[in-house]
Amino acid sequence: MAAKSFLSDMLQRIANAGPFLSSKAAMTPDHLIPLCKELVGDKGEASGLKNALKILEIYEAASEEERHSFFVKVAEEFGVDHDALAKAVSQWEPGDHAAARELYFAAEPKSQELIRRLNRVPGSTARLVNMRADLLSYVKAEPELKSLDHDFQHLFSAWFNRGFLEIERIDWSTSAEILEKIIAYEAVHRIHGWDDLRQRVADPDRRLFAFFHPAMPTDPLIFVEVALTREIPKSIASILEQEREHIEPGAANAAIFYSISNCQVGLRGISFGNFLIKQVVAELQKEFPALHTFVTLSPVPGFRRWVKSAIENEDPLLKPEERAVLEQLGDDELPADDFVQRLAARYLVNARSKKGTAYDPVANFHLGNGALLHKVHANADHSERGRSISWGVMVNYLYDENKIEEHHQAYATDGTVAASSEVKSLANAKVKLAPVAAAKAATPPKAETA
Amino acid sequence: MAAKSFLSDMLQRIANAGPFLSSKAAMTPDHLIPLCKELVGDKGEASGLKNALKILEIYEAASEEERHSFFVKVAEEFGVDHDALAKAVSQWEPGDHAAARELYFAAEPKSQELIRRLNRVPGSTARLVNMRADLLSYVKAEPELKSLDHDFQHLFSAWFNRGFLEIERIDWSTSAEILEKIIAYEAVHRIHGWDDLRQRVADPDRRLFAFFHPAMPTDPLIFVEVALTREIPKSIASILEQEREHIEPGAANAAIFYSISNCQVGLRGISFGNFLIKQVVAELQKEFPALHTFVTLSPVPGFRRWVKSAIENEDPLLKPEERAVLEQLGDDELPADDFVQRLAARYLVNARSKKGTAYDPVANFHLGNGALLHKVHANADHSERGRSISWGVMVNYLYDENKIEEHHQAYATDGTVAASSEVKSLANAKVKLAPVAAAKAATPPKAETA
Amino acid sequence: MAAKSFLSDMLQRIANAGPFLSSKAAMTPDHLIPLCKELVGDKGEASGLKNALKILEIYEAASEEERHSFFVKVAEEFGVDHDALAKAVSQWEPGDHAAARELYFAAEPKSQELIRRLNRVPGSTARLVNMRADLLSYVKAEPELKSLDHDFQHLFSAWFNRGFLEIERIDWSTSAEILEKIIAYEAVHRIHGWDDLRQRVADPDRRLFAFFHPAMPTDPLIFVEVALTREIPKSIASILEQEREHIEPGAANAAIFYSISNCQVGLRGISFGNFLIKQVVAELQKEFPALHTFVTLSPVPGFRRWVKSAIENEDPLLKPEERAVLEQLGDDELPADDFVQRLAARYLVNARSKKGTAYDPVANFHLGNGALLHKVHANADHSERGRSISWGVMVNYLYDENKIEEHHQAYATDGTVAASSEVKSLANAKVKLAPVAAAKAATPPKAETA
Amino acid sequence: MAAKSFLSDMLQRIANAGPFLSSKAAMTPDHLIPLCKELVGDKGEASGLKNALKILEIYEAASEEERHSFFVKVAEEFGVDHDALAKAVSQWEPGDHAAARELYFAAEPKSQELIRRLNRVPGSTARLVNMRADLLSYVKAEPELKSLDHDFQHLFSAWFNRGFLEIERIDWSTSAEILEKIIAYEAVHRIHGWDDLRQRVADPDRRLFAFFHPAMPTDPLIFVEVALTREIPKSIASILEQEREHIEPGAANAAIFYSISNCQVGLRGISFGNFLIKQVVAELQKEFPALHTFVTLSPVPGFRRWVKSAIENEDPLLKPEERAVLEQLGDDELPADDFVQRLAARYLVNARSKKGTAYDPVANFHLGNGALLHKVHANADHSERGRSISWGVMVNYLYDENKIEEHHQAYATDGTVAASSEVKSLANAKVKLAPVAAAKAATPPKAETA
Repeated sequence: MAAKSFLSDMLQRIANAGPFLSSKAAMTPDHLIPLCKELVGDKGEASGLKNALKILEIYEAASEEERHSFFVKVAEEFGVDHDALAKAVSQWEPGDHAAARELYFAAEPKSQELIRRLNRVPGSTARLVNMRADLLSYVKAEPELKSLDHDFQHLFSAWFNRGFLEIERIDWSTSAEILEKIIAYEAVHRIHGWDDLRQRVADPDRRLFAFFHPAMPTDPLIFVEVALTREIPKSIASILEQEREHIEPGAANAAIFYSISNCQVGLRGISFGNFLIKQVVAELQKEFPALHTFVTLSPVPGFRRWVKSAIENEDPLLKPEERAVLEQLGDDELPADDFVQRLAARYLVNARSKKGTAYDPVANFHLGNGALLHKVHANADHSERGRSISWGVMVNYLYDENKIEEHHQAYATDGTVAASSEVKSLANAKVKLAPVAAAKAATPPKAETA
Repeated sequence: MAAKSFLSDMLQRIANAGPFLSSKAAMTPDHLIPLCKELVGDKGEASGLKNALKILEIYEAASEEERHSFFVKVAEEFGVDHDALAKAVSQWEPGDHAAARELYFAAEPKSQELIRRLNRVPGSTARLVNMRADLLSYVKAEPELKSLDHDFQHLFSAWFNRGFLEIERIDWSTSAEILEKIIAYEAVHRIHGWDDLRQRVADPDRRLFAFFHPAMPTDPLIFVEVALTREIPKSIASILEQEREHIEPGAANAAIFYSISNCQVGLRGISFGNFLIKQVVAELQKEFPALHTFVTLSPVPGFRRWVKSAIENEDPLLKPEERAVLEQLGDDELPADDFVQRLAARYLVNARSKKGTAYDPVANFHLGNGALLHKVHANADHSERGRSISWGVMVNYLYDENKIEEHHQAYATDGTVAASSEVKSLANAKVKLAPVAAAKAATPPKAETA
Repeated sequence: MAAKSFLSDMLQRIANAGPFLSSKAAMTPDHLIPLCKELVGDKGEASGLKNALKILEIYEAASEEERHSFFVKVAEEFGVDHDALAKAVSQWEPGDHAAARELYFAAEPKSQELIRRLNRVPGSTARLVNMRADLLSYVKAEPELKSLDHDFQHLFSAWFNRGFLEIERIDWSTSAEILEKIIAYEAVHRIHGWDDLRQRVADPDRRLFAFFHPAMPTDPLIFVEVALTREIPKSIASILEQEREHIEPGAANAAIFYSISNCQVGLRGISFGNFLIKQVVAELQKEFPALHTFVTLSPVPGFRRWVKSAIENEDPLLKPEERAVLEQLGDDELPADDFVQRLAARYLVNARSKKGTAYDPVANFHLGNGALLHKVHANADHSERGRSISWGVMVNYLYDENKIEEHHQAYATDGTVAASSEVKSLANAKVKLAPVAAAKAATPPKAETA
Repeated sequence: MAAKSFLSDMLQRIANAGPFLSSKAAMTPDHLIPLCKELVGDKGEASGLKNALKILEIYEAASEEERHSFFVKVAEEFGVDHDALAKAVSQWEPGDHAAARELYFAAEPKSQELIRRLNRVPGSTARLVNMRADLLSYVKAEPELKSLDHDFQHLFSAWFNRGFLEIERIDWSTSAEILEKIIAYEAVHRIHGWDDLRQRVADPDRRLFAFFHPAMPTDPLIFVEVALTREIPKSIASILEQEREHIEPGAANAAIFYSISNCQVGLRGISFGNFLIKQVVAELQKEFPALHTFVTLSPVPGFRRWVKSAIENEDPLLKPEERAVLEQLGDDELPADDFVQRLAARYLVNARSKKGTAYDPVANFHLGNGALLHKVHANADHSERGRSISWGVMVNYLYDENKIEEHHQAYATDGTVAASSEVKSLANAKVKLAPVAAAKAATPPKAETA
């Protein structure tokens, strides 16, 4: 029989009984800030746990508006101690390292201590992650909450340090509780129920790995889906189709990372993907020493957005005759394969964000990790999403252990995009002007309608 | 068979192979600071893990002097960015919460990021805790390292948040690896080998509970030893003696917390004891619903030190005639039981530190937790240490769930010491002037010579 | 990462390599008997494991006919050593205990050793259970295989001894692999997919417990589903309906055992149900000390079959006027509630099998366990099966820890059926002759069509 | 926290309460047989568990004499049903397989069912194994108990089938509870306390593996100690010495099986050693693919016993001049190394038991497993035991996966002893007649006196 959590019982007992709290039985969101003040003030640990639990419960029962108002007040009332800060500033002068460090400690906003004390309640880490997910939804409209969000992010960076994460293989021996979340969190290629899931995690030539934090043992933070194949696939359908033949995993030549999903909105800005990919490479090499090719099959989410803006801004990467073709293209129509493949290669190799990084966010992620732009496939993703973001184009990024460091440094230093000679020549090729492949629009293939 | 850690293999592989590191094969402590700079600089994650591992290894192989020199350099070279700080200071004015928060982030010393990145190596948390233990040994002599130590403590407070700790019962089914550490870490009543240990953890009426952090699964952070008894014991010998009769734990009336040991020097300043005691109370209540009395049997480590200083300073708490008696007392002699019991009670209730808290550190700890000074026992600890710190006096502090909050608040607010009427009247009693109980000095009882 | 099974690798290596087996690469069912002889003969353990594995693989790849033929040959060729038996018989005379025991060992059929040696292959226990399931399917048509089946059952009784079984709570933290089998094995009230399953195992007021054998850790042997309720329910629909309100399990007054399913055909004749029910009672009492009522909600599978036979045989338990009513009843029609309830009570209390036990197999099971016939409900199971076996009648059997022994002994000694006074008076009541409740036939309730 | 065993609580509750048993509170050994009869008779399961538990408890509290008397009565009163047997015998005639099988079932002694029912109590398997250990101690003096012992062995063979055993690596992460038993059970080279144990299980170049049965999770059945070395060692001291240098296990060329201990007297006659060795070979190959040499370093327990008998019987294997030398040898003296090495080789290759197997039991074990007699070392075991059984001679048996089958079959078929050419020529060599190495007697080396 599974061990019971005694502490939660104790906390329940503490929280429900005793003269202190019984008078506050009918707590409302109005009590949140006073309770937070009591919590941060030097009160006993016992009431500390009680108050922390109470705050979490009231918060979770509160309305959107009440939550929003709570954050605004926390930002104001749990800020930095301005007197202490002023004093520390006055004692510091540039070059005095010790005084600067003390200034740092003096400048700590009280919200940091608030969040730390809320986290003392066993099991509350996941609740705080959810709280920040709420906060993030307000930040857009209300930038003054941004500095409070930095507070959360600051602590979460410490808490979710790579050294604390645990990798787990997710398969058919995993609990239904976690598997259900995998279905819900898959953000790239939707999982259509338990049978589809079984294929992704339990087929002999499929793997799914996730990172977990010990304080959130049933909440994956990020996961990656891997297909073990004989050849590098040219389309996502070949991986997802239901009737495909399995191969012996030991006979695989390539591991295809075909989907990476971040699970926790509340952990935005804390990056796990790079670590996960590299650890999964290590795990697979351990299990299959013969495996040497590690590539992704990735979407190109910025492609059509860039084309649109390139047309508008008369970006020189786009030639006038190409622009003409593209302007004639209906929304549901696909350009010819050759045309779109070359244009995508050119986009991926050359288009830049204002910061000078690759324009495409997925490209930026993998290039930043040290991967190489290996192949560009037209007609590779027939899903509605695939067509709407990139006319169905997908890309393989190659993770070559011996080159990762070199590629990463070149990209980090001067934005050099590592690309195979094939992709480079595609990027440089003149795009053939061909009639639009309109016919394709009519035949969404089977796998996507499942 | 136990699962293998694939990641450590990978790291080993990463660390040992590849052109990047092979040229650095013969790394010395001189490389530490350059490696740290590379680590903190925006380099790839792969080299990041490699470098972090290398730093830890070089550090651990370094001499005392090299370590010391490393800390001095880190304090200087991984400090705050003074330009950024100056800019943030200029943009802040008291009352601007957002600017103050941004100032906080601008003031973060680079050493914080350094420590966070070192921690990315799986298994490195314990190594960083040991690193801080080293640092602490230098801080005394070199106060300028204090602010660097604050850095460590700041991060450790986040990492070792109560919400991340796990309680474990330690018993005879625990691994030898952990049990061995319990023997080594017991700081109050030494454990004399495996047979003695077996009594402490495996006797039916004994319990030992510890807190662990998930990233240090074989390193207890703190542990408490508990005896289940029929009556509150008056001396430690009755708990530790080897030939005692066991009782059915279900028949116990009292749980005696007779030893609490912090295990990690490197976690100084991060307090777990209060949480541990209260959770152990909850665990025991769960297992034995009939158990209602939870007391400690605690040493009085400040007693003789205070007496000495009181004599020197002519502290009015000590009457002239008492002083006379004490001055005549040989170093190895014990005062009469009555005399010493009353004096100890008076000391515990009335003697204060400069901060206004109880002079005795153990008293301060338990009173701060909301416990009550329940009983004072003369002649309770015949060990050499017991005699040298407190003439063998020991104390019971009582944890009464219904009063903890009240006691804690009274003590926190105005330093009121919660004491039983018995202790209060002892504290107020005139100390009887009796001849020195010199005879006792001659007969250290058996339990202590084991 | 999950620990790998090294042994299976070894066995694979052993089985696939080496001169011995390579020549037998293309083994067919014809090799089964020679391989079995090699296995039972005194050959080395290494080839033993190889041969055992080979036998299992060939068997599993064989056709129905080949399997049947295999059993026939095993029965003949792995029988008792007649010479040894004859000798042992000649040395025995009634009253000589030691000689009788030696006769027993002399009489052991070689098939016992064959099965034991097949079981040496790790993981083969489940495969042998499946093998017996096949055998059982032939036994009906071919009674001469019955004695071979006894062989299997004899060993399985030893292997699946109660002392070796482990109880597990099945809930949403259980692996998909096991949960999928629960869906497949539920034999009483079909589970309609994963959402229905979630209700049965993860709702706060539902429990599912199973017995496992350590050598078959992902194959439940038997499981029972329990609903925690305020009152004893009168129909299965109230338990299974999807939109019902949950109750706090601590607030429950009764635990309803509403479904018990044996999972392994190959374990027929080895009874686990009685042990499981009693242990689940103990588990629930431990978790909810306030819980005192433990009842089943059980089908009455023999009811209509008995009625049919009672009509044919003019059983005096059925009065002529009742028979008349029943003979007029259409196959899809239900008798009136009063009528059917009384008739069912009478049947359950009085109808006997040839052996003198309760005619109804479910009644016989629970009465044999010491339960009491507590209530009879008409109109309690609207499923097609419920209507076809018992016109929708269901029964509560009550497990009262203080009476179990007494009831069991009375039933075991002279077949006395323990029944509540309510059921007794129903059983003695004259059945009211009412018109058929035909209308009910038209409205199968929602829960059953889900 | 560790999960509690609810069932044992239940059983305790069942056993301690209720009218049935309260009257039998003061049960004595006189009740054993009546309770056993109740247990085997068709009584309810509830009382069954109660009675089984009671029997075990009374038995365990009984005196030697009472236990002995219990076994005598069980042998008599729980024998075969002579009437049923007579009937089955009458219905059988040689050649009738089904009748022979039914005769087998009819001949089952009631003691089988008694033992099976005792085993239903969770945790009782280990208690029954201990019970048989007692029984074995009476069998020598009282051969009529032998057939009852066969009963136990018969069931234990089924229960402890290889397929149910689990291999575990024992190391420093193993529980103290199990490690303590390893110390106690080591039968070949005594473990001198916890520090010595740590070397055997936790040194990087040492391994210890054990078989466990799931129903006895803290009781090892058999274990083997392995040293990973560069070369095949010539003496046990080089393995056991405390100050030796460790090697990287990955750098090892050979795995030395230097101690195999059966742990459970009550499992005599059920052989695990062969399986264990072969599985450990597989485990080590998995962990260290480069490891190819697997040898034992084994004692020669029958050597001096055989020499003594050869002298007495004038065995032609011993030449007259050798006999003369040996007869002059003092009890504490060692023959010269050359002499004893050749004589031992000759003994091992040629000396036979009455059954035609190797005279030496350890040789018989390893040769039966398919190992080869690889080397014979004089002066290899300086312990008192080593000197008294074999004048300090030890032997390496080599397990060569590719030859195991062949050697086993040759030995099984006609007793051919597989030996290296070195050993063969030693065996054939004329033993040099040298003066006794008396000096050696004076210097027992350090390792053995620790």
